[in-house]
Amino acid sequence: MRAEPFAEADLDCCAFLGGRLRLWQPRHGYRAGIDPVLLAASIPARAGQRVLELGCGAAPALCCLGVRVPGLALTGVEIQPAYAALARRNLAQNGLTGEVLEADLAAPPAALKAQSFDHVLANPPYFEEGQRSAAPDAGRELALAGPLPLAGWVALAARRLAPRGTATFVQRVERLPELLAALGAHLGSLEVLPLAPRAGRAPRLVLARGRKGGRAAFRLQPPLVLHEGATHLEDGESYTNVIQAALRDGAPLAFAADDRGKGRV
Amino acid sequence: MRAEPFAEADLDCCAFLGGRLRLWQPRHGYRAGIDPVLLAASIPARAGQRVLELGCGAAPALCCLGVRVPGLALTGVEIQPAYAALARRNLAQNGLTGEVLEADLAAPPAALKAQSFDHVLANPPYFEEGQRSAAPDAGRELALAGPLPLAGWVALAARRLAPRGTATFVQRVERLPELLAALGAHLGSLEVLPLAPRAGRAPRLVLARGRKGGRAAFRLQPPLVLHEGATHLEDGESYTNVIQAALRDGAPLAFAADDRGKGRV
Repeated sequence: MRAEPFAEADLDCCAFLGGRLRLWQPRHGYRAGIDPVLLAASIPARAGQRVLELGCGAAPALCCLGVRVPGLALTGVEIQPAYAALARRNLAQNGLTGEVLEADLAAPPAALKAQSFDHVLANPPYFEEGQRSAAPDAGRELALAGPLPLAGWVALAARRLAPRGTATFVQRVERLPELLAALGAHLGSLEVLPLAPRAGRAPRLVLARGRKGGRAAFRLQPPLVLHEGATHLEDGESYTNVIQAALRDGAPLAFAADDRGKGRV
Repeated sequence: MRAEPFAEADLDCCAFLGGRLRLWQPRHGYRAGIDPVLLAASIPARAGQRVLELGCGAAPALCCLGVRVPGLALTGVEIQPAYAALARRNLAQNGLTGEVLEADLAAPPAALKAQSFDHVLANPPYFEEGQRSAAPDAGRELALAGPLPLAGWVALAARRLAPRGTATFVQRVERLPELLAALGAHLGSLEVLPLAPRAGRAPRLVLARGRKGGRAAFRLQPPLVLHEGATHLEDGESYTNVIQAALRDGAPLAFAADDRGKGRV
């Protein structure tokens, strides 16, 4: 847990979405990779809708989404005061208005319970507490391995959704059975979009979505491939066009493959 | 339910595995497609092992497996007497020895409960009873939409498995969440191999496996693509090489993609 604010010297400011977004992050704490950026790119939000991110950290996903879709009402919940402060700073610095609640997801505050949302998103810790060697930085550790089971994240998301609202999670593929069980207990129209490092390789991450009151059959999408080529040949980026468009141009990431499977293998 | 035996005139004999296998099937009843052939190709059985198929029908999967891996002890369970008789005939005609028990999976006989197996396989009905318009042929209908939930098939498979034994199911992708929940309740080391009609298209079927006492993390394999090309251009076969090898040459189908993703997209 990181309560005391970060010192300015412990922060740096990085460009995201080809420079459209600048995010302050702790040099040695939890730093956003491409996961929250792709999560944000996959949210089918439209101007005027209300969006909630659970465990938003420094708010990379909320900020990416806010920059891509102007006119959203953005809300983040973050348990670590130092990260919640960064999230507020990042929203303001990028010209976004939003509310960041400092709260434990296991005991959501009344201010959260009073609201409902059209979309909920979350990038929950990829490990359960105690399942991995702890990172030396306590704030980073809490972002990587949390005490709340995935079922708790999903149940809270489902409770805060308006009818027909979507909840979307990014998670390690190893936890897909657990995530599907949790989603299926509260939501319908489940869909999974696997993210594979390269064509023909087993996916390592999944985006998984459910809809409140949804009645469509489960859909497993073809994997979205992150990198070109069969192996890592040289340093530097080798993102596929679809991924590059999401990361560099802030393009939306269609959850469903179209009928021709464009951009998917 | 089909109790009375099929008349000879109602049967025909088809070649499978490039002619290595000949199977009698009812002209108008349930007929094997490629699903049981691929299911059989995916079973990691070795000579001397005991294999059980639940709901074996006319035993296309058992026969494919028996022809590919000589020296297996084969057992099938089938509720419809007419199909159980065909299964015995198909095993014998192909030089295979095996036992076919006529039984309801919801009330397994003592002869089955007394045994354990190294591998269990099943191609359960793709629909739940009442979820589709019934086929005019009652025997075919029972093969397509059964009264026993998937959880019942999986629980029975798990109970009959020897330690470290595998249970493998082929099923419509729409029921993957239900299948994973059932597998996860009894087995470990779950793995899913999606079967996609073409590259970049959403998978329609999945092979899903669990291991008794398995402790490995869940793995989602890259989809195995059935047909070459982006669309159906002409009549006739257009199977990919891996699928053709399994269907024509009786080659095994590796459940896990190798590191280079050979044959997978």
